[in-house]
Amino acid sequence: MSGLTGTIDTSSQVDLSHHLSTETRLRQANPMKAIWRLARRKADMISLANGDPHYSLYPIRKVEFEVASIGDDVDDPVASWRTAGPSAPSQTFSTTTESSPGKLPLKTALQYSAGAGLPDAQRAVTELTNHYHSPPDHIATLTLGNGDGVAKIFRLLGDPGDHFLADEFSFSSLTNAPLSHGINWVPVRIDGGGLIPEELERILSNWDSESQGKRPHVLYTVPCGQNPTGSTLSLERRQRIYDIAQRFDIIIVEDDPYYYLQYDPLDFDDSMADAPFNFIPSFLSMDIDGRVMRVDSFSKIMAPGMRLGWITSNPLFHESLVHMTDSSTHHPHAFGQIFITEMLSQAGWQISGFDRWVRSLRLEYQRRRDVFMRAFLRDVASTGLASADFPEAGMFVWIKVDIERHPRYRTGVQTEGSLAKTNVAQLMEELFERCLDGGLVVMPASIFVTPASLKVSCAEHPVEDRLNFLRTTFAGPEETMEPALKILATVLKEFFSSSESAKA
Amino acid sequence: MSGLTGTIDTSSQVDLSHHLSTETRLRQANPMKAIWRLARRKADMISLANGDPHYSLYPIRKVEFEVASIGDDVDDPVASWRTAGPSAPSQTFSTTTESSPGKLPLKTALQYSAGAGLPDAQRAVTELTNHYHSPPDHIATLTLGNGDGVAKIFRLLGDPGDHFLADEFSFSSLTNAPLSHGINWVPVRIDGGGLIPEELERILSNWDSESQGKRPHVLYTVPCGQNPTGSTLSLERRQRIYDIAQRFDIIIVEDDPYYYLQYDPLDFDDSMADAPFNFIPSFLSMDIDGRVMRVDSFSKIMAPGMRLGWITSNPLFHESLVHMTDSSTHHPHAFGQIFITEMLSQAGWQISGFDRWVRSLRLEYQRRRDVFMRAFLRDVASTGLASADFPEAGMFVWIKVDIERHPRYRTGVQTEGSLAKTNVAQLMEELFERCLDGGLVVMPASIFVTPASLKVSCAEHPVEDRLNFLRTTFAGPEETMEPALKILATVLKEFFSSSESAKA
Repeated sequence: MSGLTGTIDTSSQVDLSHHLSTETRLRQANPMKAIWRLARRKADMISLANGDPHYSLYPIRKVEFEVASIGDDVDDPVASWRTAGPSAPSQTFSTTTESSPGKLPLKTALQYSAGAGLPDAQRAVTELTNHYHSPPDHIATLTLGNGDGVAKIFRLLGDPGDHFLADEFSFSSLTNAPLSHGINWVPVRIDGGGLIPEELERILSNWDSESQGKRPHVLYTVPCGQNPTGSTLSLERRQRIYDIAQRFDIIIVEDDPYYYLQYDPLDFDDSMADAPFNFIPSFLSMDIDGRVMRVDSFSKIMAPGMRLGWITSNPLFHESLVHMTDSSTHHPHAFGQIFITEMLSQAGWQISGFDRWVRSLRLEYQRRRDVFMRAFLRDVASTGLASADFPEAGMFVWIKVDIERHPRYRTGVQTEGSLAKTNVAQLMEELFERCLDGGLVVMPASIFVTPASLKVSCAEHPVEDRLNFLRTTFAGPEETMEPALKILATVLKEFFSSSESAKA
Repeated sequence: MSGLTGTIDTSSQVDLSHHLSTETRLRQANPMKAIWRLARRKADMISLANGDPHYSLYPIRKVEFEVASIGDDVDDPVASWRTAGPSAPSQTFSTTTESSPGKLPLKTALQYSAGAGLPDAQRAVTELTNHYHSPPDHIATLTLGNGDGVAKIFRLLGDPGDHFLADEFSFSSLTNAPLSHGINWVPVRIDGGGLIPEELERILSNWDSESQGKRPHVLYTVPCGQNPTGSTLSLERRQRIYDIAQRFDIIIVEDDPYYYLQYDPLDFDDSMADAPFNFIPSFLSMDIDGRVMRVDSFSKIMAPGMRLGWITSNPLFHESLVHMTDSSTHHPHAFGQIFITEMLSQAGWQISGFDRWVRSLRLEYQRRRDVFMRAFLRDVASTGLASADFPEAGMFVWIKVDIERHPRYRTGVQTEGSLAKTNVAQLMEELFERCLDGGLVVMPASIFVTPASLKVSCAEHPVEDRLNFLRTTFAGPEETMEPALKILATVLKEFFSSSESAKA
């Protein structure tokens, strides 16, 4: 089982130390920590060592958050909270300077601490992870949200010139991050079910280290409600990908902010309504070797401004992450650690209340998805010019535009510096501009193309010819969905009837 | 004057873009931002673009901090707060979901934002900087505290193999940080007045790029209450160092967490008590070229767990810092931004109240310094075995041990791999162990030696022979100072009378 201390039994785990980057291996532990250990030599040591402001000088006496009530009597807490407005029942998470049972006191929380986070906060997220994933022999490191967590993992594992694998469409603000320190991406083709295991295996089996450099040793993937395609990996695909990772010695970076936003299957019927929803097993839950680094976030289920999340990893990677954190961002902020610790404490929601919140939130987003998809099917799909899968998780609908039906669609195109054989990119740019002119903002597929230095995947079906998608979201309020999709339908119809050349 | 927007007049600033590291130059702006700009094409655009959780789904309705009262009627707010305990008068900083005049609403604060910080928070710290430093043409970037800020600056400016200058004794958890990405330190000798300008000039003038590599282009220094030596640079030294920086094209990284903890001069007398204390001018305040990057923190004046600070820099470096932040830690946490924004707002302390707090805090630490130094002079200096300067700022007293008087002190020593000509290091290690055995924790000078790959400074007076110092602090409660210093006196006397060889 997971734990907080060095007493974890790691006997079943594989030695994965060769995955650490040179920078990580060169990083030194803070030499002052050795002194702090020595400072415990006797029972009543007096210290003149640490320049820590005394807590009596903090000007803060109490921190209080007024939050949604999650009592047993609240049936659907998210809907109650959202619809009742200021009259919705609330409760508070709070703490004060001095210790009181079950509270994280300000005199501890507001002091300097270590990169893994305050022990109480680290314990809180560890218990959460154990509840949902029961990973063997893993340990939690707090982060400042998934952006921070993923960027740290890329530094942890990546040397300049290394190749990392990723979904061929991905969230560009994360996949762009390691380019500047010399990481090369190898995109893996995906379909409606997410990353295709056969494509992953093909790339790794055919890898030629002589001509291509060191074989990729890291896979970055978003397994639930993938951003931007909204796809979710099935359990079977997850197991196959994990097997491939074992065979080719790959570290899987499981970036899973939408884990709690999983929806009922489309064949759901009322007879299933009494059974609790089963979240799909994560990569972490099946990790025997310690080769999964799971990245969790509160941004989608609490609020993005929280900027607090955690990585769950094997103990060796955890220790390296702590050293990196102690040399960069230092320990996470007290206010967020207080919030999550109090939320998960006896006096707060506890895990049972958290579970009620996320299950209620899941249903809220599922309703939004259904409103969105009904409007989409009625107004957009009915044009015959676009289609979309029902997303099983997350916030995104990946709308496929039937671009081959456009009167100006061309094949046999040749463009210098591009593998494209069609004019899809140009037509989609024109469609995007027409949406803007019509008053609608969507995200074009082109900005999600994983930047690849080596075009190892699908030279015969280059991603440049598969840009005929728009990322849309049902995260916003329901009242905007219908007018937005009506604009999209109108723009599509006008665009597909336009045989004149592209606008300037 | 400083501002928040791109409208700053930078005409007086020098082009410093050649200082940016390769990594910084390769870093790409988030491509999604271009879309967000396009989303403002028309007045009433509808967006399906961003996967941002809607604020009605945040479970948080109110955030409230109970803080020290800083009303005009409170004469010495820190002393009142510390001594009155739970009955000390307090006020609250708070905000709720919806906008209200002068408040930073949760629906904005808890949403995704950008790397520079929320505009309201950025404006608050900019006004603070303008109040104390009036820098020309600079702009603020929020950080997660000084550790984060300094580490980001090292990445911003440093390529592998670069040389950076630093005080020869420095805070090791910061100076160790960039070693793993290939930065080499060049230590500059310091004395009781901090960094010695002549030493800085000597190193730069004598630099031989042929044999030593690219000349150092960055100076990292803590100008007030330097950690660990407690020294403070005089205005004259600051001006000379700035001149040298201009002549040799150096970027000055001014890490100044103790700026507000400056103390009355030793020649202070009651006739000076009516004039308000003058804080010494910062490097930032004299920066014409844009070559100073100032790093500010709330850790020492509010609480370390805040983990919120800011960098003030020229607009070009600011823009690069924002890109770096958008690719790593992402925007800072909402809770800390709410705290500082509300604190400095009309409804909070405002700058005038902040100023009263820090001036009162300054006097609080000055009292502690005086208690410490009185006990030190009486119990320790009186032995004739140790001495210390009165620190003019900060939290540290750098105790010099008169090691040459020790019966086992030796010169003419030769040790492989060391420039040391004496056995000072060994004797000081023994003294440190004796302190621990006596129940006292102090910090040995050895752990603050700036790690140098090139011993360019003082081969004739190597730092290895100048380790006869102990870092002590007066930040802790007064009641521990006297017993602690009595232990130190006893240990020193026993140690200096010990002519037997070192303990095992």
